[in-house]
Amino acid sequence: MLYNFTNDYSEGCHPSILDKLAATNLTQQPGYGNDEFTKEAVEAIRQLCQNPEVDVHLVAGGTLANLIVLGAVLKTFESVICAESGHINNHEAGAIEATGHKIETVPTADGKLRPADIQPLLNKFPEFHTVKPRVVYISNSTEIGTIYKKQELEELSRFCRQNNLLLFLDGARLAMALSAKSNDLTMADIAALTDIFYLGATKCGGLIGEAIVVANESLRKDFKYYIKQRGAMLAKGRLLGIQFAELLRQNLMFELANHANTLAERIAQNLQALGYAFLTQPETNQLFPILPDSLIAELSKKYGFFVWRKAHEGFSAVRVITSWATPQEHVEQFIQDLKALSQK
Amino acid sequence: MLYNFTNDYSEGCHPSILDKLAATNLTQQPGYGNDEFTKEAVEAIRQLCQNPEVDVHLVAGGTLANLIVLGAVLKTFESVICAESGHINNHEAGAIEATGHKIETVPTADGKLRPADIQPLLNKFPEFHTVKPRVVYISNSTEIGTIYKKQELEELSRFCRQNNLLLFLDGARLAMALSAKSNDLTMADIAALTDIFYLGATKCGGLIGEAIVVANESLRKDFKYYIKQRGAMLAKGRLLGIQFAELLRQNLMFELANHANTLAERIAQNLQALGYAFLTQPETNQLFPILPDSLIAELSKKYGFFVWRKAHEGFSAVRVITSWATPQEHVEQFIQDLKALSQK
Amino acid sequence: MLYNFTNDYSEGCHPSILDKLAATNLTQQPGYGNDEFTKEAVEAIRQLCQNPEVDVHLVAGGTLANLIVLGAVLKTFESVICAESGHINNHEAGAIEATGHKIETVPTADGKLRPADIQPLLNKFPEFHTVKPRVVYISNSTEIGTIYKKQELEELSRFCRQNNLLLFLDGARLAMALSAKSNDLTMADIAALTDIFYLGATKCGGLIGEAIVVANESLRKDFKYYIKQRGAMLAKGRLLGIQFAELLRQNLMFELANHANTLAERIAQNLQALGYAFLTQPETNQLFPILPDSLIAELSKKYGFFVWRKAHEGFSAVRVITSWATPQEHVEQFIQDLKALSQK
Amino acid sequence: MLYNFTNDYSEGCHPSILDKLAATNLTQQPGYGNDEFTKEAVEAIRQLCQNPEVDVHLVAGGTLANLIVLGAVLKTFESVICAESGHINNHEAGAIEATGHKIETVPTADGKLRPADIQPLLNKFPEFHTVKPRVVYISNSTEIGTIYKKQELEELSRFCRQNNLLLFLDGARLAMALSAKSNDLTMADIAALTDIFYLGATKCGGLIGEAIVVANESLRKDFKYYIKQRGAMLAKGRLLGIQFAELLRQNLMFELANHANTLAERIAQNLQALGYAFLTQPETNQLFPILPDSLIAELSKKYGFFVWRKAHEGFSAVRVITSWATPQEHVEQFIQDLKALSQK
Repeated sequence: MLYNFTNDYSEGCHPSILDKLAATNLTQQPGYGNDEFTKEAVEAIRQLCQNPEVDVHLVAGGTLANLIVLGAVLKTFESVICAESGHINNHEAGAIEATGHKIETVPTADGKLRPADIQPLLNKFPEFHTVKPRVVYISNSTEIGTIYKKQELEELSRFCRQNNLLLFLDGARLAMALSAKSNDLTMADIAALTDIFYLGATKCGGLIGEAIVVANESLRKDFKYYIKQRGAMLAKGRLLGIQFAELLRQNLMFELANHANTLAERIAQNLQALGYAFLTQPETNQLFPILPDSLIAELSKKYGFFVWRKAHEGFSAVRVITSWATPQEHVEQFIQDLKALSQK
Repeated sequence: MLYNFTNDYSEGCHPSILDKLAATNLTQQPGYGNDEFTKEAVEAIRQLCQNPEVDVHLVAGGTLANLIVLGAVLKTFESVICAESGHINNHEAGAIEATGHKIETVPTADGKLRPADIQPLLNKFPEFHTVKPRVVYISNSTEIGTIYKKQELEELSRFCRQNNLLLFLDGARLAMALSAKSNDLTMADIAALTDIFYLGATKCGGLIGEAIVVANESLRKDFKYYIKQRGAMLAKGRLLGIQFAELLRQNLMFELANHANTLAERIAQNLQALGYAFLTQPETNQLFPILPDSLIAELSKKYGFFVWRKAHEGFSAVRVITSWATPQEHVEQFIQDLKALSQK
Repeated sequence: MLYNFTNDYSEGCHPSILDKLAATNLTQQPGYGNDEFTKEAVEAIRQLCQNPEVDVHLVAGGTLANLIVLGAVLKTFESVICAESGHINNHEAGAIEATGHKIETVPTADGKLRPADIQPLLNKFPEFHTVKPRVVYISNSTEIGTIYKKQELEELSRFCRQNNLLLFLDGARLAMALSAKSNDLTMADIAALTDIFYLGATKCGGLIGEAIVVANESLRKDFKYYIKQRGAMLAKGRLLGIQFAELLRQNLMFELANHANTLAERIAQNLQALGYAFLTQPETNQLFPILPDSLIAELSKKYGFFVWRKAHEGFSAVRVITSWATPQEHVEQFIQDLKALSQK
Repeated sequence: MLYNFTNDYSEGCHPSILDKLAATNLTQQPGYGNDEFTKEAVEAIRQLCQNPEVDVHLVAGGTLANLIVLGAVLKTFESVICAESGHINNHEAGAIEATGHKIETVPTADGKLRPADIQPLLNKFPEFHTVKPRVVYISNSTEIGTIYKKQELEELSRFCRQNNLLLFLDGARLAMALSAKSNDLTMADIAALTDIFYLGATKCGGLIGEAIVVANESLRKDFKYYIKQRGAMLAKGRLLGIQFAELLRQNLMFELANHANTLAERIAQNLQALGYAFLTQPETNQLFPILPDSLIAELSKKYGFFVWRKAHEGFSAVRVITSWATPQEHVEQFIQDLKALSQK
């Protein structure tokens, strides 16, 4: 295979992380997140949030972050609302339900939740027979590549606060969202508009790591207990600290995200020029073009990507992902091959 | 502080791991443990176990390994038996109970379980009013530095099989146990005598990682679901694969363990020569000498270690730990200081 | 209010139960289901099942039965499939998810599941990222009053066995289903075609009680532990035993169900004669006629019933329920009032 | 067997309950605890508590009450402290752990907890590695028949409030405790000194039923959700309402408790006169005399009781229980037989 566009976690990490790991390898550091690198990472995130008060906790991965957060903030009878396409609903092997909580889902076209999607779930049988919705879970960018505009997030945030709902943002690909051309949100906006969210390193230059930001003060107390209890407190917290300390130095993570987005955009423009439609509007590093099955078969000989689902007779939507590490030349070759195969 | 003997996870990792991470950094690899390094690590562990059939799963840390294993093998009404000093009983913030299971504990002098400790727990009210013991959890080396001899493990294993109990060995410090002078067990013995166990890298040369070995065939099916559901399936499984692939190449991990044990032994011999007693027999890299409180106060000015508990009037047991990374010269200095301070 | 048709649990129990409670009140009996009445009830149920091998456990209510069964038979990563209208999905305050399991739902018109509804849920991402469906939950009669025909249940049963799925039938209103005019199933069929089911007394002549029948031999072992652990093992099991022993003597429960169904049919025929449509076909004691909102307002002055949902402009579906205890004269008066109000 | 002293739930219920069930049987009542009898019971309990604000919830049994309360008030990382002899620790099949919580136990001689027992559990490793104690669980009367004096409960209550601990009292046999000769507590004291407790009917004249009293205002919100979610909300709540409404009319429950205690005292006095010692001081309806094994063998031919445990060579402690329903004549016969057999 020439190149694999199946996901954005096929490579290792940005070299600055490896350099830092090597340079500090034999420094003795306290365990469990009390190391100096984690402190540095936490400060960098507080600065991005323009809020020195938020609590920040580094954990290994997204499913772990999701189950820790939802397990922490929900009472046993409270539910979380999410889009049907939400990661917690589909690809976490029932991790959230395993913490005891129901996920209530809403079908959406673009993977984004709006107040009108949520309102009907609040009008249920008005008593103890049903679960009580308490958290709204969104992803930015979404599982299908779209992003929230500032106004959308503001409306959702306002709706949640009016209805005693907590807003939780899964930011496994937040760097890509915030670096998208169409984006008008900042980390500070996210910290102000949500109650809790995380910023992912795994899919944007790190080997590992999601940084949970507890924006809502009432959720901060004893949060480390939840992390420890779920087995997410690494003895060598330095490993997580170094990922974020390096990636957030001089904006590196967002430059890497921009690289991924830019290459994706270049593919998208060529696909559009070739007349192909998309399942969702291209905005970030995840593209969902709808291609002829014959073209898919040809492309598969040389490139990796994921066949998402049947679109219509003879056509399927595929998922093509670029990453911080994708070389420009592979993208150019992919575009040339696309053009050549499309002209046949 | 000159040197910190508080734990064996204060430093980074063996340089060969960093070298390998760097050398393979931009190789594209499949995610979720399907990478080539994990395959190599799994093979190395199977060879150590002298059993090509065992399943091996790499996860980030010990609490995670414990809660995955116990959550996987226990039915809701089944309990796990462990020593009162067991890690799952004391230092995992209730992680096992959070998976729904009772821990039944037995007081021990040396942190080790024997059939006679377990038998009384099997003679309970013979019906559905009580939990039903199903797993015996042991640690090797134990939380207080002792190790199991082959005969002890054989007796325990036989007892468990006769009583329909599964034997689960927490090997967060298994490399140190198997490298101890007094040890007569091999990994192959462990794989043959237990049903499931893990080998820890975090405390012996790795940045992260415990390798769960599912020895009992009946426990293997669908095990990855449990790993995914607990949030323990790293997208970049290569990070875990490289730890074990490197540490198990040419026996490196056991040489590192031997280094830690040897330095500990040197400290222990000097402590004994100075007339100090120990809470438990020195066998591995964890020492529990009983020292005068005045000496402890003096030593604390220069060295880090953990004051374990009051021993008798004016004396406390402390925990002194050496690691794969402990430099010989710091140990020599520590011994000299010990001698000097003891003569005052 | 003249009469309340809101549900079928507004009254106490059949007098024969009260008589038996009184007659045996001071007899000393062993606790926890070892009393002679429970033994008698178990035998009666085994006879109805034409299977002396099935295990039978009596518990207080339906939600308790559902959470015990699903908590018992599912591994942590396994899910249960049910109709969107399923009781476990809507009206149990997240009880099933609180045992750690995801409910996967299918929209249906009539509350019944068919193989074609389930098949798509088995074709998911073929690995550990998603939950693994293991149980199919159905209700008979359904939450919207419909019943399964023998052929339907046979097809579903065959499909489940071919796909390694367990079939679990919620029989909170099983007596009404089996007593329906359109029914062609027997308890013996149910026991042969499902893996586990329960027969409800609460809604058919008892004060309390659902009888869980464990038809599938592989699910029987240690089942009482699950009952005890969920707090469902009554000290005075005689209370439950007497409900079923009396209701199953000389077919009483099914006569009571027939009474409820017959009165409902009489209402349904009159509604049809008056030209009203139904949300679902009337088959048992739950009717869902679609009535003008003005008529609903008038009827509400004299009768209790539940306004189910808006149907179309000016019309709503209501739920009207008759029970074993509903007096014929109230039904006749209700019909007269319906006629009179409809002619206005 | 002439008479069974094994437990206090061998008989049915006080006839006034059966009478009321019969008299109100066909009255239509709202379900789920909204019936008039439950309202009456709640008022009676508020009056006993001398507090019109407390919330009262009726559930079927003690294990159910315990798991609902602890599942409701504990966060996932919080633990409950109890005596080793506590019912939740021994005889609930791991029900509390199944809700996700660790039970921390303290050995006691008399089944009662005192501040000095609890203090050491609060002095643990001062961080997120251990569970965080939050509830102190006590039983009154205890599982071994002893009761709390007012001063003891006041000291415990004060200690809990000073240490941010909730005090939860299991009152499965509270009526017997409050009716004991040595008792100086009232229900109003209990309501004032604990945060949450329950009063049991099952063991004192009812067929079923424990009344959970939520004394601490901060624990009241949404409590019914927990009851529904655990499957404890009976459709025909009238069954529970009638138990308590009748038993609390004109102090009936406490008269019944007094009957049980008085008969037990009579047995105890005779045992003492015969020179037998007791495992714990006789105070309520549960006696734990230490008898010669030969006497136990003889008595067993005619009477039921529970052999509790070996005491010393040739002697065992047995548990002898009287109940509200125990006939005086059987007690007299038992005493005569005791005397006769002891003289042999």
